Amino acid sequence: MTTELTNCNIINIGDEILSGHTINTNASFISSALYDIGLYTRRISVISDDAGEIVSELEKGMKDAELIFITGGLGPTSDDITKRTLCSFFGFDLEFRHDIWEHILELFAKRGIIPDEVNKEQAQFPASERVKYLKNTAGTAPGMHIETGEKHIFIMPGVPNEMRTMMMDVILPYLKQDFSGDLYYRDINTTDIPESSLYSMLSAEKDYPFGCRIAYLPQGYGVTVRIKTTGDGSGRKLVDDAAERIAELAKDRIFAHSIVSPAHELVRLLKEKKMTLSSAESCTGGLFASSVTDVPGSSAVFSEGYITYSNDSKFRILSVNPQILVINGAVSEETVSEMLDGMLAVTDSDIVCAVSGIAGPDGGTESKPVGTVYAGFCSRTEPEKFIRKYNFSGDRATVKRKAADKLAVEMVKFLGRS
Amino acid sequence: MTTELTNCNIINIGDEILSGHTINTNASFISSALYDIGLYTRRISVISDDAGEIVSELEKGMKDAELIFITGGLGPTSDDITKRTLCSFFGFDLEFRHDIWEHILELFAKRGIIPDEVNKEQAQFPASERVKYLKNTAGTAPGMHIETGEKHIFIMPGVPNEMRTMMMDVILPYLKQDFSGDLYYRDINTTDIPESSLYSMLSAEKDYPFGCRIAYLPQGYGVTVRIKTTGDGSGRKLVDDAAERIAELAKDRIFAHSIVSPAHELVRLLKEKKMTLSSAESCTGGLFASSVTDVPGSSAVFSEGYITYSNDSKFRILSVNPQILVINGAVSEETVSEMLDGMLAVTDSDIVCAVSGIAGPDGGTESKPVGTVYAGFCSRTEPEKFIRKYNFSGDRATVKRKAADKLAVEMVKFLGRS
Repeated sequence: MTTELTNCNIINIGDEILSGHTINTNASFISSALYDIGLYTRRISVISDDAGEIVSELEKGMKDAELIFITGGLGPTSDDITKRTLCSFFGFDLEFRHDIWEHILELFAKRGIIPDEVNKEQAQFPASERVKYLKNTAGTAPGMHIETGEKHIFIMPGVPNEMRTMMMDVILPYLKQDFSGDLYYRDINTTDIPESSLYSMLSAEKDYPFGCRIAYLPQGYGVTVRIKTTGDGSGRKLVDDAAERIAELAKDRIFAHSIVSPAHELVRLLKEKKMTLSSAESCTGGLFASSVTDVPGSSAVFSEGYITYSNDSKFRILSVNPQILVINGAVSEETVSEMLDGMLAVTDSDIVCAVSGIAGPDGGTESKPVGTVYAGFCSRTEPEKFIRKYNFSGDRATVKRKAADKLAVEMVKFLGRS
Repeated sequence: MTTELTNCNIINIGDEILSGHTINTNASFISSALYDIGLYTRRISVISDDAGEIVSELEKGMKDAELIFITGGLGPTSDDITKRTLCSFFGFDLEFRHDIWEHILELFAKRGIIPDEVNKEQAQFPASERVKYLKNTAGTAPGMHIETGEKHIFIMPGVPNEMRTMMMDVILPYLKQDFSGDLYYRDINTTDIPESSLYSMLSAEKDYPFGCRIAYLPQGYGVTVRIKTTGDGSGRKLVDDAAERIAELAKDRIFAHSIVSPAHELVRLLKEKKMTLSSAESCTGGLFASSVTDVPGSSAVFSEGYITYSNDSKFRILSVNPQILVINGAVSEETVSEMLDGMLAVTDSDIVCAVSGIAGPDGGTESKPVGTVYAGFCSRTEPEKFIRKYNFSGDRATVKRKAADKLAVEMVKFLGRS
């Protein structure tokens, strides 16, 4: 049984996204926030600062969706035409709003900037009861909420931080009250099994997909099985039952449930077990530590990190035996093992980890091609080290990301067991 | 004067993007690669694995664009319907291709995986002369190039690394030959000036925008002015002349030209000057080092990094005076200064840098709210330290990113001068 969902459209306006200069994190932030309160994004469109394109996209959205989220083109410069285009589309006049101008002056004063005549454009606001003013606490461009018939249109600045603040502080609380759906899902996070094998394993069950909708979301570190329903109370139970079945079927490959990222789960487990962590990184160059310190509150568990990028620093900081560096190479199980020993000596953390590899594009050899990575960890109380060799595919950034994530995944598995 | 451009559409198919689970880096990669060879992306759409949506988007693309790039929905599982939907739209039959199957078997053997019956679906390929097979060297899902009338449709896997390889190795070389446009642009990278002031300054010139199209691209570390034309040889000269004018007008605020990222420019300058760099990070937690080591070849200039996250590690590793930590706090000019002294002592790098701040969401105080960051650097040969205080707005990830980028920007300014 499914019930009708509220459909959402996202329209991102901006040449900087179309030219590939900027990655569209705004769309993923909005859709993910909507998803979490049961609202489903049916389409995302990116278009340029062009009145014709904006109107055509808006018309399509008004037909297909109940809620439309527009970002971008609210800046003070002449290439920012979103506000004026919408006003002419809906027939609103603009008026100078003193309260908005006061807010702009305040913000500029706080930042020690003198406002410009051109900033006054941002204090212009539609003079209509159908348009609510959404205060932009993080910037100067005001947001708008247009109500027209059954449809709601939210217009937000394109600067990610300003959009996020407006979305979290103003729009989501409003939506939660009036539009929150009953979308329900559970994630099962697997690793070390390809999507096709996982699918074969699960779909071989005769009542697959167990009355739910099942999606396979490949991540660098594994495949996440998302079990969802668009239904009511009974749909919820179907999802829970299916999650239990899948957890049983794939149990050897599951390392976590419904995680934000491997680093989030790692920090959660370390906190739970009151343990501290320190890291030594070569090829990931700080990305592992940065992933861990992306997690709010990670300072309670993460003590310190060493990025021993050069051979000299591996020797000098972590006392890696220079002979091992010469004989086995910096990218080897032996070197990672030495790095772990060094970490136990220089830190007092409960768990230490180390990673060394070839991120590319250069530096590969026949026996150790680009993507070869050794990563491992050990705990101070257990002498046994866990070190694994990987052959990651992908460009430099991908290899770094996969290595950092896999290291976290293995520590999550270890902490989950212990 | 402008000439007609080849229009491109990008269609990304996949629930994982619509749900916000995955950020759409595929679209930015494709559009940026197209932009670089003078092809302009007119729209990007993200839709779900739904035959109706795919057909409707395809029809729109066939009307508006000459080149259509589709990613996603080529996996072996039942929620992957892109190939079959396109075949039914164009009236192609599928046939089992032994050469594709052989390639799949090879790939699986290399990874030590036993293929599944379900993988055979991926060896099914349209039996039509209008469809060319695009080999996926990084994965099992074959790509397709459909030619229909004047239109070209490229279908690629959704896994970023597989898509990228196919785009770089097969599709771009083809496009360069037959479709390369004459889009030309120059970027001017500014910092420490808000978009509105920059715009006021430039647009006050009486012949602004100097016969070009000028866009303002806000980054965390500043505003990039992009001057572009869609024209022929004379358009190119207009852009060059405008770039020169703007460089003169805004010269105090310009720190670089046409950079990929501040870290890329930093690595380039360090290489040019044959200098080495090491870093000490607190609040950025490794992100600065990771940005630097994202740059291919950075191992030639980046020696080592220390993530002194806990107070204890600042004292133990960098000999930061504990009294200063108590009196001035870890987030202070004095502590960063001590961190720099420590770095000069523990490394032999030519330049050392250090950063300490409050990334949030917790840890802020009235005098040092979330977003307060001290960052600085010094060179071994010049005793003077450069340390600056910032008040960044944004969430934890944004503060980390802005701090890491600004630190790189300041070093770029320093190295550019020296």
